[in-house]
Amino acid sequence: MAKEAPPRSRLEPPRVPMELHVKNREKLLRSLRQHLTETSQALSGFILLQGGEEKTRHDTDHIELFRQESYFAYLFGVVEPGFFGAIDVMTGNSILFAPRLPAGYAVWLGEIKPLSFFQEKYMVSFVFYTDDIEQVLHQHYGGEDKPILFLLHGLNTDSHNFSEPAKFKGIENFKEDTCTLHPILTECRVLKSDMELALIQFANDISSEAHVEVMKNTRVGMKEYQLESMFLHHTYMYGGCRHCSYTCICATGGNGAVLHYGHAAAPNDRTLEDGDMALLDMGAEYNFYGSDITCSFPVNGRFTSDQALIYSAVLDAHDAVISVMKPGVNWVDMHKLAEKTILNSLQKAGILVGNVEEMMIERVGAVFMPHGLGHLLGIDTHDPGGYPKGLERPKELGLSSLRTARKLLEGMVITVEPGCYFIDALLGPAMDNPKTSKFFNRDSLARFRCFGGVRIESDVHVTASGCSNMSKVPRQVSEIEAVMAGGAWPH
Amino acid sequence: MAKEAPPRSRLEPPRVPMELHVKNREKLLRSLRQHLTETSQALSGFILLQGGEEKTRHDTDHIELFRQESYFAYLFGVVEPGFFGAIDVMTGNSILFAPRLPAGYAVWLGEIKPLSFFQEKYMVSFVFYTDDIEQVLHQHYGGEDKPILFLLHGLNTDSHNFSEPAKFKGIENFKEDTCTLHPILTECRVLKSDMELALIQFANDISSEAHVEVMKNTRVGMKEYQLESMFLHHTYMYGGCRHCSYTCICATGGNGAVLHYGHAAAPNDRTLEDGDMALLDMGAEYNFYGSDITCSFPVNGRFTSDQALIYSAVLDAHDAVISVMKPGVNWVDMHKLAEKTILNSLQKAGILVGNVEEMMIERVGAVFMPHGLGHLLGIDTHDPGGYPKGLERPKELGLSSLRTARKLLEGMVITVEPGCYFIDALLGPAMDNPKTSKFFNRDSLARFRCFGGVRIESDVHVTASGCSNMSKVPRQVSEIEAVMAGGAWPH
Ligand SMILES: [Mn+2]
Ligand SMILES: [Mn+2]
Repeated sequence: MAKEAPPRSRLEPPRVPMELHVKNREKLLRSLRQHLTETSQALSGFILLQGGEEKTRHDTDHIELFRQESYFAYLFGVVEPGFFGAIDVMTGNSILFAPRLPAGYAVWLGEIKPLSFFQEKYMVSFVFYTDDIEQVLHQHYGGEDKPILFLLHGLNTDSHNFSEPAKFKGIENFKEDTCTLHPILTECRVLKSDMELALIQFANDISSEAHVEVMKNTRVGMKEYQLESMFLHHTYMYGGCRHCSYTCICATGGNGAVLHYGHAAAPNDRTLEDGDMALLDMGAEYNFYGSDITCSFPVNGRFTSDQALIYSAVLDAHDAVISVMKPGVNWVDMHKLAEKTILNSLQKAGILVGNVEEMMIERVGAVFMPHGLGHLLGIDTHDPGGYPKGLERPKELGLSSLRTARKLLEGMVITVEPGCYFIDALLGPAMDNPKTSKFFNRDSLARFRCFGGVRIESDVHVTASGCSNMSKVPRQVSEIEAVMAGGAWPH
Repeated sequence: MAKEAPPRSRLEPPRVPMELHVKNREKLLRSLRQHLTETSQALSGFILLQGGEEKTRHDTDHIELFRQESYFAYLFGVVEPGFFGAIDVMTGNSILFAPRLPAGYAVWLGEIKPLSFFQEKYMVSFVFYTDDIEQVLHQHYGGEDKPILFLLHGLNTDSHNFSEPAKFKGIENFKEDTCTLHPILTECRVLKSDMELALIQFANDISSEAHVEVMKNTRVGMKEYQLESMFLHHTYMYGGCRHCSYTCICATGGNGAVLHYGHAAAPNDRTLEDGDMALLDMGAEYNFYGSDITCSFPVNGRFTSDQALIYSAVLDAHDAVISVMKPGVNWVDMHKLAEKTILNSLQKAGILVGNVEEMMIERVGAVFMPHGLGHLLGIDTHDPGGYPKGLERPKELGLSSLRTARKLLEGMVITVEPGCYFIDALLGPAMDNPKTSKFFNRDSLARFRCFGGVRIESDVHVTASGCSNMSKVPRQVSEIEAVMAGGAWPH
């Protein structure tokens, strides 16, 4: 009798509690009411958000797979396109507005659900059609004059784009406030509830397992995209994750030095060669909540001494940061701690020469790690709220790439992702620069010209007294080599 | 010694010849010059198209994976975003305009390639930067006055959207012609070259293999999305297909009656039950060229007599159409042939009662197959050109869903996808309608209320004397049962 293959996953997609989004709404309502009270404004009007719409590709009828706009997803958890959502500031009632679907929808796209279906599914007070927004809001409004609408408009400090306030026919019969909501709602998203943490944990669990699956099956001669395919398959097949948090970065060899490799113009299409390092930055999303994990390892399963050297430098930085993270700690200090840890290792190895404190002043760390140490993570991979009003982005090289310069708070989830890369476009100028040229040992560095890079990225939850690493992948050199040789994980 | 697992695929992604796109440009140039000659216009000016741009998701910095605009892909084969492309009507020279990338691109997104790289890769005469378009076109222009630009603007008859003509700074210093190019270029895309056919064949081969892989591994208790995941993985892992032609439709049980199931609001999330039919409409894309294949089978691997009845009715329609397809045949007649074949089977089985010719007049076929028999296939799943100017869309029920009403031409690739569905939203009204109610045997039909549907879809190449089916999947009831029981495929 044939032996059954062992199960490929220990995991199952968990039930998603819609209470999560109910609590998100309650949290927002508390914050907004507090703000209105503090600024002597009436506790009335409506928070109003517009959900996303399906988009076709250019002029064709090819519809891109829809993923809800993130703020709307946070508050309402709605997976369908074309909705609006409101919260009555006075009563706390939540109102969804569903699109009125044409009869043909039932034939082509599925059953036309009654409004009561959405009311129950999304646990809201009322559901109406989007073409009744004006009328419904006026009817629900208890006050006199025009009701006030708190609309979402504000800067995303990563993209430098502004969120679009909701628009509907008849909006001119309301007072529009486009300043109040964005900072308050964004701040709500910064601190994660237990239910949010559970989803981020599942996204981490299935992604961690998938990373291990990829490690075990990576072979010289494969294409980078085959590693991507294995990851996507594992997280969808066993985790029900239809979306990733971001396009998979499957960089091998020199491509490891391209921080955001993997996009359409650099599409994970290199062939893995013996002696390459792989840098795989891949994370699945579950019910909107994401993960963002990077593993770096030699594609042939055995670290060379140079590979172990750079890898250990980055792992030391990763571990050093996590060992001191707790509420109150400044994220800029954590970035500097990572930089310094890496510079120390490079100096000890003779790749850099001279005083590390001096290197820090001259920003040599940014030559090897030009990106920020990490970013808030949630419904967006780069979750908003990194620079609330009044907090300036640092100007120094490297630090200016930080997606937040905040102090850590209990309930944040933030990535810790130090890296060490050998990037010609940065090394060349730094070695030519009279202020920094003395730090570089050209002979040593020559060995690393085609090295690419190492990044080690974990998703870390800031707890009351410290932090907890949500990403459970092999990190030690010995662990990675054991798993790649067929060893069990977790042990 | 452990036995090695058999290879999961017999295929390898083929080399993509850039000559394919060179020939596409030559074909367009011939057609345009002929038109200009026939209409006594000068053979001068430029064809100018604007390629697609990467898009972020709403206000965030989440970048959707870019896929080139289809007309631009057809002519230039460019995978990178942000390009323009021109063809000099007089000389035939082709000119690409590449975006001028900021220095930071090298650190974050990859090596900044010299213009000569793109010239060689895309086999064009010249490459310049997009900010030089105005100047370059004026310099290359041989004539007097303002050079004429043939821009792409026209109706997509599936989406009812219009393609957007290229825009750039200084365009007001040219004469714009937005009428001439679209119908001529669209007609070029209708007839496929041998090199195009080879890519469509590969997309079909890897997708056929993936469909078989899914059939073999489908089990009661699985989720629909797990079938999708297996398909995506097989086509990417072994075929290098990063994109699908369209969102996978993985419908089981009653969901088979939802023609375009699988989108965000109906996301392939049902659990497979014993006794279900599965209807899987999934096709991979390779170097822009797509495939579109549907297989229907019982999830437990054995057809019931009712399942075999409906399946065979649809297969007979599929085979009947393919057996008579050849140049000159009218597609509307093929649709009617499929309808009639299905109605005959339903009548023989006692599900319908009465005269089939009469049913055809009353459009009863459209109750069971509300969609068109098939559509042109190429760089778009619903390839354009179905209704060239002067060809009217039929008005009759069912026929009005046809994406083309053309006569077949040698070189077309068109899907043949008859289906038979039990759709409450259509059956109810048809049984109530005094003109059609007499045809329905309510007792028999009751057995099929939760059946869902069957679709059988192949991609068919119209040859000089007939046609050739490019999709090679098990189609006979016995073949499907054998493959699902572990039999080899192809035999
Ligand atoms: Mn990250
Ligand atoms: Mn089709």
